[in-house]
Amino acid sequence: MRSHRLKLLALLLVVSIQACAGKGGGVGGRIFIVQRETEALSVYDSSRREILPVKVSGLGNMRHATMAFSRDLRWAYVATRNGLLSRINLETLEADAQVKTSDNSIGLAISQDGRFVAVAEYKPGGVTILDSASMEVVARIPALAVVDGKEVRSRVTGLVDTAGNRFVCGLMDGNEIWVIDASSPGFPVEKKWKTPAPNPFDAFLTSEGRFYVAGHFESDRLSLVDLWHPEKDVREISVRDIASEAERTRPVKMPHMEMWASSGDEAYIPIVGEKRLAVLDRKTWAYRKSIPLRGNPVYALMSPSGREIWVTFSGGDDDRFIEIIDTETGETRGLVEAGRKIYHLSFSPRGDEVYVSANEDNRFIVIDAGSRKITGDYAIPSPSGIFGPWRAFQIGF
Amino acid sequence: MRSHRLKLLALLLVVSIQACAGKGGGVGGRIFIVQRETEALSVYDSSRREILPVKVSGLGNMRHATMAFSRDLRWAYVATRNGLLSRINLETLEADAQVKTSDNSIGLAISQDGRFVAVAEYKPGGVTILDSASMEVVARIPALAVVDGKEVRSRVTGLVDTAGNRFVCGLMDGNEIWVIDASSPGFPVEKKWKTPAPNPFDAFLTSEGRFYVAGHFESDRLSLVDLWHPEKDVREISVRDIASEAERTRPVKMPHMEMWASSGDEAYIPIVGEKRLAVLDRKTWAYRKSIPLRGNPVYALMSPSGREIWVTFSGGDDDRFIEIIDTETGETRGLVEAGRKIYHLSFSPRGDEVYVSANEDNRFIVIDAGSRKITGDYAIPSPSGIFGPWRAFQIGF
Repeated sequence: MRSHRLKLLALLLVVSIQACAGKGGGVGGRIFIVQRETEALSVYDSSRREILPVKVSGLGNMRHATMAFSRDLRWAYVATRNGLLSRINLETLEADAQVKTSDNSIGLAISQDGRFVAVAEYKPGGVTILDSASMEVVARIPALAVVDGKEVRSRVTGLVDTAGNRFVCGLMDGNEIWVIDASSPGFPVEKKWKTPAPNPFDAFLTSEGRFYVAGHFESDRLSLVDLWHPEKDVREISVRDIASEAERTRPVKMPHMEMWASSGDEAYIPIVGEKRLAVLDRKTWAYRKSIPLRGNPVYALMSPSGREIWVTFSGGDDDRFIEIIDTETGETRGLVEAGRKIYHLSFSPRGDEVYVSANEDNRFIVIDAGSRKITGDYAIPSPSGIFGPWRAFQIGF
Repeated sequence: MRSHRLKLLALLLVVSIQACAGKGGGVGGRIFIVQRETEALSVYDSSRREILPVKVSGLGNMRHATMAFSRDLRWAYVATRNGLLSRINLETLEADAQVKTSDNSIGLAISQDGRFVAVAEYKPGGVTILDSASMEVVARIPALAVVDGKEVRSRVTGLVDTAGNRFVCGLMDGNEIWVIDASSPGFPVEKKWKTPAPNPFDAFLTSEGRFYVAGHFESDRLSLVDLWHPEKDVREISVRDIASEAERTRPVKMPHMEMWASSGDEAYIPIVGEKRLAVLDRKTWAYRKSIPLRGNPVYALMSPSGREIWVTFSGGDDDRFIEIIDTETGETRGLVEAGRKIYHLSFSPRGDEVYVSANEDNRFIVIDAGSRKITGDYAIPSPSGIFGPWRAFQIGF
């Protein structure tokens, strides 16, 4: 009996030490890859340069799943299309809490002070706010707006955190942009703008958290709000040169806004359906020029050095390539063939590596940003979004 | 005997679980405070809002001690004036390696790819590069330069990491700025510029890693290099309006450059000995204007939102105050009395809090950035530099 307990204790000790050593290097190097079709996440350890032998599963429908990280890097949060918000322990890589906040969620954000997680919801439309530590729901904000004299409950999109402990989001069916104050009890919606065009469906926040830009369905116009000056009206801006007749008469396409790029004084916006990247002035938001591309762009990702934009494409001829654009000259600096149907890409925080999901090839690819060489290639079923812990320390994720 | 071993094992298990749980919240929230006079570091846990009951000691002379963090957040590194480089395990908060690299060190940096730690040294002058994992010295680069026809071995200052896996530093006695290539075996010094003025003694790297600006002793001139274009010459810029006679004839003072601030299109530089902050154009580096201050500035710290600059002062009348300047208007937005002799301050990465060392009061102060209220106040002997794990994810630290 004693001997038995002794063995048990010894076993527990070993287990506990293994858990303590973790399943890889430090938590700061753990990069999560969404498995789009299998309700799971894979974890790449960037120190050990390997996919860790764990899989975080049972997370729900992972299409468009996004992640946020607690600022002490104890936890990662993931919201999925079933309305499930799951919390993952970054040390043990196990889900330690799961809450059903709605029937269909489409993104999440963590407040500047780290205390609250907000989830954007399609069904029923609204924002649910949870205590990031207890995982208790602390507020449910229905997305109610009046459209053509009728009250609608809207889908919510483009949810981000920003300075002042605020959340900002778009009401896709309510045609509004909202600011929610997470520093006040009750989480008041402190500002609502009607958008000039209908159906804001995706958004971009500049890195310092000042400008929130929403795209609209079937329109080349964008809605811009200056969060430093909520007293000012929403402004309409365009990804085209609206002074040019030729530009104005082109067929209107839906701009894809999942990932834009901005550097010191320019913003780069992929125009879906056209082989161009629009360049806007980052201060005045006037159209400056466009940059020709090899295909129809999907993502435009700025390197942390601000010197290059890495662009991905839609369409079978182009979707395995990444085109690298020089921000100084607007010229192509290189082309990387990374694998079929690139679904997502992310720079390492200081820019030495680029992580890529090649969905159709079921590969997760690591590229050395300097040499453009593929330095890692791993099998992952149906890889999609890529999220690293550094997001904990950035505004607008 | 059995019972004894059983107890021992049970004890080990408890110890191991405690070590595993760590000595506080997650590693991402562990903020280190240099104890200037006691060869030690204190650790503030920003999740638990408490100073952890640990002290990392035996680190050497902590004057001007600076820290870097590994990108997987397993380790913090600290270099001290005795020439000691120590590595601290972020989970257990114990020093797990210590190497004497020189007789006197003055700063360190970690390479973009995380593989190398470089230490800037006064005695004997040079840069020592270590493998960040094994802590083995992999290169010693003596800082040799020719001044007035004579070879000198120079003190090294202003060491930073930047894109392309490069280190940049200044040769204080050699009057040069160097770029070291940490992506090539042998760590070649790939570029040397002679500075227009003598004695570069401190430097500032813009956040994207493009511009390196060095200050000079007893001079209002600064040396600027554009790291995107190493083929270009070093440029001399000034913190004064050199077109103005009144400005030119003011007595020359040494600009203090330990901490500057830059936002989208402006750089803010504290001018020591004058109650002003110089504002330069962040693109052309031309002098734009100056902002009046309540005292002689020491540090100018930009909020992560880019909307405010928090300025500290020298001199008994002013050194307990932080003046908050609005970057849009150049006007004072607030004044916080944080404690006597403020030695250092740091924003939390997303800007909700400011951490302050009030050296003469032996206090570590936490300020809510929005309300300007002091929300935490802790006794720490002789507090100085404050360093958080988010530095792992930023260029130039």
